[in-house]
Amino acid sequence: MKTTLDCLPCFARQAAEVVTMSVDDPARREALLRRLLREIAGTDWQGSPPEMAQRLHRIIRRETGIPDPYRRVKDEMNRAALDLLPRLRDHLARQPDPREAAVRLAIGGNLLDAGAKTQIGAEDLPRHLETIWPRPLRGRVDDLFRAAEQARCILYLADNAGEIVFDRVLIEVLPAERITVFVRGAPVINDATMDDAVTAGLPEVAPVLDNGSDAPGTVLADCSPAFREWFDRADLVIAKGQGNYETLSDVPKRIFFLFTVKCPVVAAHIGEPVGSLVVKERLAHE
Amino acid sequence: MKTTLDCLPCFARQAAEVVTMSVDDPARREALLRRLLREIAGTDWQGSPPEMAQRLHRIIRRETGIPDPYRRVKDEMNRAALDLLPRLRDHLARQPDPREAAVRLAIGGNLLDAGAKTQIGAEDLPRHLETIWPRPLRGRVDDLFRAAEQARCILYLADNAGEIVFDRVLIEVLPAERITVFVRGAPVINDATMDDAVTAGLPEVAPVLDNGSDAPGTVLADCSPAFREWFDRADLVIAKGQGNYETLSDVPKRIFFLFTVKCPVVAAHIGEPVGSLVVKERLAHE
Repeated sequence: MKTTLDCLPCFARQAAEVVTMSVDDPARREALLRRLLREIAGTDWQGSPPEMAQRLHRIIRRETGIPDPYRRVKDEMNRAALDLLPRLRDHLARQPDPREAAVRLAIGGNLLDAGAKTQIGAEDLPRHLETIWPRPLRGRVDDLFRAAEQARCILYLADNAGEIVFDRVLIEVLPAERITVFVRGAPVINDATMDDAVTAGLPEVAPVLDNGSDAPGTVLADCSPAFREWFDRADLVIAKGQGNYETLSDVPKRIFFLFTVKCPVVAAHIGEPVGSLVVKERLAHE
Repeated sequence: MKTTLDCLPCFARQAAEVVTMSVDDPARREALLRRLLREIAGTDWQGSPPEMAQRLHRIIRRETGIPDPYRRVKDEMNRAALDLLPRLRDHLARQPDPREAAVRLAIGGNLLDAGAKTQIGAEDLPRHLETIWPRPLRGRVDDLFRAAEQARCILYLADNAGEIVFDRVLIEVLPAERITVFVRGAPVINDATMDDAVTAGLPEVAPVLDNGSDAPGTVLADCSPAFREWFDRADLVIAKGQGNYETLSDVPKRIFFLFTVKCPVVAAHIGEPVGSLVVKERLAHE
């Protein structure tokens, strides 16, 4: 999915938010935001939105000297999700279709996205999760589980901190023994890295590796050769989050994208309104 | 009121919206948006937000060769407001306090703002107007009418097309014989100019002049000498809309600002939440 003109203001918003969060001195704030706006104005717009975000967040980390500006935010999101987990497991166990409920939870957790305009913070999580049960779930959950039953090698591409706690719940109802989870290779926005996977207890249910990249999505050319080998070998990819959709939607591969639609650009691309919980299948030869 | 870092993404959004609206060719769209983003990144941020908007919209008009990109939008807004007017007048006549109701209507119409993020289009006007009656109205309506009764020379600074139709309703319950209405001196966003005042029938109730400026607010230094003389001489100013608030909030003058709070930056500045209907008095010697 390519960057559109409507993505540009969103980059500016992200830039202003992270600058405000990471820099205290007003003059340094202004200088860094100017630097980022010039980058937005001057860079190639042909790539996917996460490629632009990757560039901006690299500049932010370099200029501020803060290697992981969202560390506190991620810790809060993990903590909020872990606190809710026992209650959610009870809730799931009582559902007529616990697998569909696990999918809802994994997708609903995707709104813990510090990069999106439509985002929730850790403090909003309990209230937000109540809204995910009655919402329409677009796409075929049965097809996802059928594909997972038939696949020999499944990659599960995680997205954000906090959300990754709910990924564990979904992985537990999938054939976990054939799943390898991938997180980002380095901090970017609130995307989950290995630390978050460990906090979520994910290595207890499936092996977790990192993709070697600091893009808030899966930019194959930027991932490690080891990841690309895994990706080629896998016969099914489960990709969480808008960032993974934006970077992989044109890749010829059997992928199930699981995410909450968080912006009008993605909504138009996928044909579902903002706020939708989506299970979107992509065939290997589309 | 000064521009804040949070205003910058909003300028980028305005730029993307107007470029999409005014330019069809993708390459020209991209070039113009890059030009505007560079302008945002490079310009002095010390002024008020409408001063930045003025710069951007001048570039847009010059580069596109379209002297009034929002003309169609303004016509639609005027039409929608005029269509609703008879029903609204009936509604007002039945209110226990028709003056307060007229203030509500004039402020509620202020959401017809093509520059704001929280905006409504002409098609949303009927549904939107239903929401303005039960909402809390912040500020003292009685003080406004008392000040108007005592003033000898009142300036009424209009804001947007469409909205200006409802300004007429308010002016009719004010001492119209001592009011002079001012509109913008040239097209900018959907701000009302003389054409809109005439369409709204405003000259039938009070003289209408223009302020000589193409800023979407009242930047005194940019207004005509004639306007500045009127402004100095007036003993009361009624200023509609956020743009007039953003540009006049620090000017030592007796001003009643009437507007809908449409963004978090103004909300923080005035201490009222987004969506509030506000009557904010500024004393001459604050």
